[in-house]
Amino acid sequence: MADDNPIRFGLIGCAEIARKLSRAIDLAPNTTLSAISSRSIEKAQQFRSKNGLPETVTIYGSYDQVLDDPQIDAVYMPLPTSLLVKWAVLAAQKKKHLLLEKPTALDVGELDEILEACRSNGVQFMDGTMWYHHPRTAKMKELVSDSLLFGQLRSIHSTSTFTETPEFFEHNIRVKPDLDALGALGDTGWYCIGAILWAMNHRLATTVVASPPAHRNSAGIILSCTASLHWDDVNPQAVATFHCSFLSHVSMDLALRGSNGSVHLEDFIIPYEESCAFFDFTSGAKFADLHIGWNVKPERVEVSSTLPQEALMVQEFGRLVKGVRDCGRSPDEKWPEISRMTQLVLDAVNKSIDLGFVPISL
Amino acid sequence: MADDNPIRFGLIGCAEIARKLSRAIDLAPNTTLSAISSRSIEKAQQFRSKNGLPETVTIYGSYDQVLDDPQIDAVYMPLPTSLLVKWAVLAAQKKKHLLLEKPTALDVGELDEILEACRSNGVQFMDGTMWYHHPRTAKMKELVSDSLLFGQLRSIHSTSTFTETPEFFEHNIRVKPDLDALGALGDTGWYCIGAILWAMNHRLATTVVASPPAHRNSAGIILSCTASLHWDDVNPQAVATFHCSFLSHVSMDLALRGSNGSVHLEDFIIPYEESCAFFDFTSGAKFADLHIGWNVKPERVEVSSTLPQEALMVQEFGRLVKGVRDCGRSPDEKWPEISRMTQLVLDAVNKSIDLGFVPISL
Repeated sequence: MADDNPIRFGLIGCAEIARKLSRAIDLAPNTTLSAISSRSIEKAQQFRSKNGLPETVTIYGSYDQVLDDPQIDAVYMPLPTSLLVKWAVLAAQKKKHLLLEKPTALDVGELDEILEACRSNGVQFMDGTMWYHHPRTAKMKELVSDSLLFGQLRSIHSTSTFTETPEFFEHNIRVKPDLDALGALGDTGWYCIGAILWAMNHRLATTVVASPPAHRNSAGIILSCTASLHWDDVNPQAVATFHCSFLSHVSMDLALRGSNGSVHLEDFIIPYEESCAFFDFTSGAKFADLHIGWNVKPERVEVSSTLPQEALMVQEFGRLVKGVRDCGRSPDEKWPEISRMTQLVLDAVNKSIDLGFVPISL
Repeated sequence: MADDNPIRFGLIGCAEIARKLSRAIDLAPNTTLSAISSRSIEKAQQFRSKNGLPETVTIYGSYDQVLDDPQIDAVYMPLPTSLLVKWAVLAAQKKKHLLLEKPTALDVGELDEILEACRSNGVQFMDGTMWYHHPRTAKMKELVSDSLLFGQLRSIHSTSTFTETPEFFEHNIRVKPDLDALGALGDTGWYCIGAILWAMNHRLATTVVASPPAHRNSAGIILSCTASLHWDDVNPQAVATFHCSFLSHVSMDLALRGSNGSVHLEDFIIPYEESCAFFDFTSGAKFADLHIGWNVKPERVEVSSTLPQEALMVQEFGRLVKGVRDCGRSPDEKWPEISRMTQLVLDAVNKSIDLGFVPISL
């Protein structure tokens, strides 16, 4: 059912990822794309025509113009990390609700500036981590919360890796200190840290420690790193490890192990296919007599999705923004808290590497 | 084709695992089970009848009797770790070829005593790590050695975990300091370390570091730990992590990631089924346009096996022993070297934990 009063989105920047999001805004039933901006009007024009967007979508040659447009309720901001704090704070001050690409800031100090601006201006904040919104994620949470089938969480392992052409390593913003200074840790490690915190029901780790080696390019940008987390307070038996990299074949592994069950998938960030995703679940596995096999094999749990996960994310964001815009509700606090905790752990991993792989207490 | 001059095995001890091995000795075409020993003749008798072994299999009420039996070529020794050095050295001195359960010793110093005894007595040594001998392992090696399909190795992750009843934690030899003092690190971590070294073509890591937390029982035995390895010399970009535990649901994960491909399996130590095993292989994965899916999904590579992996292990051991016994060859040196390197890394992990998770150079 079409929404006759949808949340009107403006895009701040025309990065490649904006193509995916403009499609998601179109697919989500409660949002509509109203404006596109780029630092050059030609680029915005090109983006609109290349992506088959209607002429009713306004194009702007500066970000400020979107923020000054009273027809715009919310902005999606896929800018390089170092630019986010400036534009996100400005957007909040202009009362635009904020869907921000990850990593959300260069450090938690910057993110706090953004969140404070959102709070004081009464706008909704959400970061652009899409997989949280896939129904598969909810299904996994249901199973790992089952104290019989899964038991108590013991270990989490996650990876987020891909590799690229030599041109990427030479020119891409993601390896430039003045643009995305967090490198692979920010771009891919964000997902691993998010997955670990999600698995731990967003209890902050007590200690974070990076493991050698960490690789950097000549400008000092992290290209690959590994770290572990633990929780002395809520679950001293649990350990989480992750590996993120720009130097390795595509991977998006998430393995959760409890005292009585396991969940495993290899495409947690972007499912292999849009319409149907799956994960493997095993419970109560034992060895056969003589230890010559297993009593059970992993069961493939399939979860279909009516909308792509990014459209579900936009829909959820739209729902919260409508609550604020149309019903006078306060902005939801769960999503900004998740972003902040993720950024906090990311900062700790960064610090651990900088200081020579020492443990960082949180 | 039946071998009319098979390698004649004696069992030193009737541990549960000896049941699996006596079946394997029966299945391997070049070996035969000739004698069983236990510290009590009744136990040996019981083992023979319970496992349907013929009366022609001699039973002994002491280990010494097997070692003194001139009809015995080789012994399989599934004793608690702390007893291995004494009995393994004695067996070598009595010119018995040695198939030794893992972990092979409490530390590399003890293992060196065993290996020196084998060398000076001209007997073959092999440890009882079965999965090395599965044809699936060779198939995986073939694929990860393909510089186009897989590329250069970037990361290895392995787990070996299971959990047990309260009785196990109270009484099992694997949690007793005077018997299996290496706990979960020795019993399950052995496999992870072996898998990592196997993936690295048995190049010794330059640095090993454990990550907190490590859990111990009240007697100080490790119940769970995590560690990482790296290679500053041969492959500075590679990192390996592993997690081993007595506190977690069964897992046997091995994930290998190269610059262009991935191998993944969840049953690397004991395949789900004896006759046919599989692993997942992905090469050249990219995201679909708009990053809304993948261009390829993992391909399931199936590998069938005519014999169970433990019988293939026994067969390979038998082949080497025959070379020595019947053809005057020197004992093969590859297998003892693999055991020694595994034990060396295991010692380093142990030391890292003992010293508070500091890096250990090798």
